[in-house]
Amino acid sequence: MRAEVLAIGTELLLGQIVDTNSSWIGEQLAVNGMDCFYQAKVGDNLNRIVEAVNEALTRCDVLICSGGLGPTQDDLTRNALAAVAGVELVRDDDMADRIMEMFMGRGRSMPQNNLRQAERPEGARFLETQPGTAPGLVMELDNGKQIYALPGVPWEMQQMMTNDVLPALRERAGVSSVIVSRTLRTWGMSESALAEALDERMTELDQIGNPTIAFLASGVEGIKVRLTASGPDREEVDQLLDSEEELVRQALGDVVFGVDDETMESSVLAELSRLGMTIGVAESLTGGLVGARICDVPGASAQFRGSIVSYASDVKFDLLGVPRGPVISEEAAVAMADGARRVIGSDVGIAATGVAGPNSAEGHRPGTVCIAVVIGDPDRDGIVESAMIRLPGMRQQVRELSVISLLSLLRSQLLKVQPGQITTAAGHDLD
Amino acid sequence: MRAEVLAIGTELLLGQIVDTNSSWIGEQLAVNGMDCFYQAKVGDNLNRIVEAVNEALTRCDVLICSGGLGPTQDDLTRNALAAVAGVELVRDDDMADRIMEMFMGRGRSMPQNNLRQAERPEGARFLETQPGTAPGLVMELDNGKQIYALPGVPWEMQQMMTNDVLPALRERAGVSSVIVSRTLRTWGMSESALAEALDERMTELDQIGNPTIAFLASGVEGIKVRLTASGPDREEVDQLLDSEEELVRQALGDVVFGVDDETMESSVLAELSRLGMTIGVAESLTGGLVGARICDVPGASAQFRGSIVSYASDVKFDLLGVPRGPVISEEAAVAMADGARRVIGSDVGIAATGVAGPNSAEGHRPGTVCIAVVIGDPDRDGIVESAMIRLPGMRQQVRELSVISLLSLLRSQLLKVQPGQITTAAGHDLD
Repeated sequence: MRAEVLAIGTELLLGQIVDTNSSWIGEQLAVNGMDCFYQAKVGDNLNRIVEAVNEALTRCDVLICSGGLGPTQDDLTRNALAAVAGVELVRDDDMADRIMEMFMGRGRSMPQNNLRQAERPEGARFLETQPGTAPGLVMELDNGKQIYALPGVPWEMQQMMTNDVLPALRERAGVSSVIVSRTLRTWGMSESALAEALDERMTELDQIGNPTIAFLASGVEGIKVRLTASGPDREEVDQLLDSEEELVRQALGDVVFGVDDETMESSVLAELSRLGMTIGVAESLTGGLVGARICDVPGASAQFRGSIVSYASDVKFDLLGVPRGPVISEEAAVAMADGARRVIGSDVGIAATGVAGPNSAEGHRPGTVCIAVVIGDPDRDGIVESAMIRLPGMRQQVRELSVISLLSLLRSQLLKVQPGQITTAAGHDLD
Repeated sequence: MRAEVLAIGTELLLGQIVDTNSSWIGEQLAVNGMDCFYQAKVGDNLNRIVEAVNEALTRCDVLICSGGLGPTQDDLTRNALAAVAGVELVRDDDMADRIMEMFMGRGRSMPQNNLRQAERPEGARFLETQPGTAPGLVMELDNGKQIYALPGVPWEMQQMMTNDVLPALRERAGVSSVIVSRTLRTWGMSESALAEALDERMTELDQIGNPTIAFLASGVEGIKVRLTASGPDREEVDQLLDSEEELVRQALGDVVFGVDDETMESSVLAELSRLGMTIGVAESLTGGLVGARICDVPGASAQFRGSIVSYASDVKFDLLGVPRGPVISEEAAVAMADGARRVIGSDVGIAATGVAGPNSAEGHRPGTVCIAVVIGDPDRDGIVESAMIRLPGMRQQVRELSVISLLSLLRSQLLKVQPGQITTAAGHDLD
């Protein structure tokens, strides 16, 4: 079955809003095994919407529209659908009551305009899921093709897609099987290196056809390896994914740092939690991004104590105890990490120092970055690891790559540590 | 003249990458007075690209394609253009040399694949601007219609649009007048409050028609007020914009914090530079975002000395000298700001502490944030200002709104200070 997506709204063409709805719908269609070869945007103009709908229907079986279901004169999707089907718009009294009740439930009276939202092309029906005042619509044409009309508000659109549209499309396409994707997140291998490591298995899967493996390069977030499996029920699909994940992990090793929504920072926090350790950060070129990213994770406060952004060199010397001298070196990074550990009173200290650009510094080109990890007291049973790396890109990219490189170095070291192996003294230095 | 945009790439249909190029191109076309009624996305499939191009050409005079100019077998835009024009692809030796030199300049040898990028449909020509290895193309068809092919990498595409495509389109469209937009960036007023403040002037402009004013809500970046003017030459247009900007600034006052690419942080750094002052930051819920954002600005090191992210309460007490007790209060924020100033050895200290969520803390709901600014030594001639604010949204939004609210508070205080009014002692505390 072929589907297409049409995003409706002049603000999309003018670039005032980026159309993320089509991308999201496209992803959902793909995961559910449906082809979507074409997506388009058109403005709030009746004739052009009608043209765009008719043109899409020459190619596809199902058209999913988003936008143009609001209460104003500019919201023309209902009218366009009626014109395409050659029917009248009718007001649905039940829907009018329902919308009025929504307003009353919020203690407001309904503006007269909103009655427009209770209109539907004759023969079309409203979708059951209706998170906001705009009801979704589905209309079947004489030739059997279907048009869905969903609101432009992303979360309303997504609920309707998930609850109503996708199940109906799957039924229509005769997809009785369950299709589930699982994303393994990796850092530290190029796409071609991943492909090489999984080459044999992917050749096998080309024959078997289920599950499938796809790579998604995701910039400073690494490369995602998406496993998609189908089967008669969820349990069987989950088993397929479990065993495939195991095979992929065996082939790739520690470069897999998380699954689905897990991030490098949540992975690092989980390892720290496993070891009962707290962390402090010393930053220079990243300016605070390392700390900010760690505490993006709700509950980070159990492990994350703080960060010292020593942007000026003398803050590195005086506050962190870095020996006076060059500050872009592995030695300086280690001294910063150890300083953070001591000053912040944490078990672990990590640090990044380097050149974000645009200018060189201390004879090093932009992209030269030194990262260091200190776990426990190096004078006792602690671990020290550092690296000098060269990162590509401009200022912003260098900084973001520095963050994930540092967190990845920390993760790789934490993975080797057993609970109790290293003496912890979290927070005690300061009390 | 009618233009259309076609974004090419299977990853766009699958939702792996959101197509922001079309939005950006649409905005540029609008600003330059050209109609764009339709934008589409198509995957890496030769027949479908050809179909999509041909279909667009039935409606428009100029088609702008982005994507599909890379070196791999999947990059088919060159082939599609050749098919549309009914010509062969030819290799351009000059371009091959140029690409090879680019690789050599980076100390790498050119993969054989990249020679594909030196191919062009017979009769098409390469664009002059070429920031990366992928050259842009323009091809004129027998019927006089034009197709531009630009790379999918946003910054490469944008440079080609700005330097080559837009000037050529303006000439083609006979736009002899110059059209220029200027964006005034605001923080602290709602869109309806801005509209009210500018109501009278906008009614006048509706009559005059030139310049025009438009509002663009930009989330945590505030609301942009875009002035667009046209005239026979740049000088006259700039004069129109200058006098309009003056009128708008009179109506809006200090809520205008910057023009075009100026950000709140660059505005703050400019004020600090004017006063010859350095800054240190103390952060809690923002986790490092304030510092990270300040040093997003190249050259920030002249003013920004560092930041202390005191996420754990005892780091606030022990390192910043905040009195033990509740840490979500204006008093604690002031103590943090003053602590940052002293510990980091800066002239100015600023701080944010509060509840990002999802849970409440110290009896305060998520979104409760205290911000403080200390300029100079409060025991001498320094200034202290603080506020408790309530911010809407979830964890991430609360943190980002905290950053700009704090920087805005700082900016409003710095604007009142004259050079020499407050004693500075940058960096001396530590030496």
